[in-house]
Amino acid sequence: KEVLADLIRTTDVLIENYRPGTLARLGFSDERVVEINPNIIHASASGFGHSGPESQKPAYDCIVQALSGIISITGTEEGQSVRVGTSISDIITGMYTAIGIVSALFRHEKTGQVARVDVAMLDSTVSVLENAIARYQISEEIPTPLGSRHPSITPFESFKTKDSEIMIAAGNDKLFSDLCTVIAKPDLAVDQRFKTNLMRTENQQELKQIIEKVLSENSTRHWLEALDVKKVPCARINNMKDIFENEQLKERNMLLPVESENGFKIIGNPIKFAGESNEASAEKAPVLGEHTDIVLREVLGYSKEKIASLHENKITREEY
Amino acid sequence: KEVLADLIRTTDVLIENYRPGTLARLGFSDERVVEINPNIIHASASGFGHSGPESQKPAYDCIVQALSGIISITGTEEGQSVRVGTSISDIITGMYTAIGIVSALFRHEKTGQVARVDVAMLDSTVSVLENAIARYQISEEIPTPLGSRHPSITPFESFKTKDSEIMIAAGNDKLFSDLCTVIAKPDLAVDQRFKTNLMRTENQQELKQIIEKVLSENSTRHWLEALDVKKVPCARINNMKDIFENEQLKERNMLLPVESENGFKIIGNPIKFAGESNEASAEKAPVLGEHTDIVLREVLGYSKEKIASLHENKITREEY
Repeated sequence: KEVLADLIRTTDVLIENYRPGTLARLGFSDERVVEINPNIIHASASGFGHSGPESQKPAYDCIVQALSGIISITGTEEGQSVRVGTSISDIITGMYTAIGIVSALFRHEKTGQVARVDVAMLDSTVSVLENAIARYQISEEIPTPLGSRHPSITPFESFKTKDSEIMIAAGNDKLFSDLCTVIAKPDLAVDQRFKTNLMRTENQQELKQIIEKVLSENSTRHWLEALDVKKVPCARINNMKDIFENEQLKERNMLLPVESENGFKIIGNPIKFAGESNEASAEKAPVLGEHTDIVLREVLGYSKEKIASLHENKITREEY
Repeated sequence: KEVLADLIRTTDVLIENYRPGTLARLGFSDERVVEINPNIIHASASGFGHSGPESQKPAYDCIVQALSGIISITGTEEGQSVRVGTSISDIITGMYTAIGIVSALFRHEKTGQVARVDVAMLDSTVSVLENAIARYQISEEIPTPLGSRHPSITPFESFKTKDSEIMIAAGNDKLFSDLCTVIAKPDLAVDQRFKTNLMRTENQQELKQIIEKVLSENSTRHWLEALDVKKVPCARINNMKDIFENEQLKERNMLLPVESENGFKIIGNPIKFAGESNEASAEKAPVLGEHTDIVLREVLGYSKEKIASLHENKITREEY
């Protein structure tokens, strides 16, 4: 606790993701933290936030994905819901926390005012549901999973080809007409069922079957090339292997070899400041506690003796 | 162009999401922008970024989801991939752009240095794939969709109940043992197939069938109550209707009625600064151009006559 107090005293930002109340129980209430360091930005990321009836509940990414509604709109057209295949609730919450922290630092720099940042996984995940929230209120129908298609633009979805699947986004009449030319079905563009985006969306299943019948006669590569000529937005459904072979990602330094890890790569920083350093490799992640002594010595100025005595008296998580 | 130059002159941040090169073609190259305002933070969000071989390609959310690999890991256990049910590539890109902008503002405030922020949808989406990127490199197997389950923790997935589905996250031996007690199958916790998380993950299908058989005999509400007593993390798979009835989201001011819109609600700001204003309602979104004259008059100081002449000579997007 003495070390934590010293760290709080010397830092600009305290970030923690304990369940609300835990830090206070450990002796570091919001008031105490500001008392130790009146200039601190204190940020918390938690499952449900530091207020409200559910505040104390435990949270994992999959629990919050379930509660947030994002699972209810992700899945097959036949209605089988699935979790987003990455821990999107965890990640989005971290990103909002980062925005909150940097905003608070900026304001502090300009005005001297501090901030107590409180970001919840549930709030964060609900905040990305966009059109589902609006559609439900307007139509009073509960949105369901739509497979790979867009709720109100057609054709804007994936189609089976002879060898895999292809995503096509023909978002207006011109692009739809070009798509019809590419698949040698120019009549579709003037067909009464498909003339406007609204009509196409109303008759989406019918249109999908017609398009997919043609696309399934040739390979994804064939169709990508043909659609590219007409500038109809399209894409292969890449997998992890494809990602590692992607030239654009290489060029953007998005696949960083980790030093002395035999070519193992991690993902680079997607926030590029053009003309400034854009790292081409990453340092190995530290093992737990690797930098403890450096921080105690160089940041807090502790003596060798003090550090040694802290190690001697260390209590483990279990003992705590 | 004169108005835009004046706006650039008076603003802290220029944000645009044109395809790379478009702003320069319109007469506003990076150099020209900084020339007009040497203190500006110029931020671009684009499909593939302002460098690399794919830089010029058009992008939509579904195209980038397809290229990023996120679709390849989202979908059913049987292997049917689906798009994340919200425009997650669009959204994450906006969030990274926000982090870049606020960071650049903070740095500018401290050092006077400006920044040219360049965020790509492809980079941004790849950056959230987390364990799939690592699993592929370690195992050399291409990750596939996993339905609602976790790749390496079991049971950490959704199960059918009598009336719907329930998410259960029993992430360690203790919670698994408690789950077994709740479903009246205490023997499972010491079963050779399921004793450790590794064993449970290896025998996930078998375990899922056993658990689901019991859960399907009673309602989601019943199981949620029973699991809550034992503090086993669990959740209903909420839909949009449930979201609007959620007390925690209400308490957190996450459902904001829009002024004079008959109860229509939008999602609140998930970044809370505790103890500071937390809006309980939202202003109506402006219609296109609603604030043009106010900006011209109050920000740029244009005269009535000048504004009138701009309106007279206005060219439409089509004419342009």
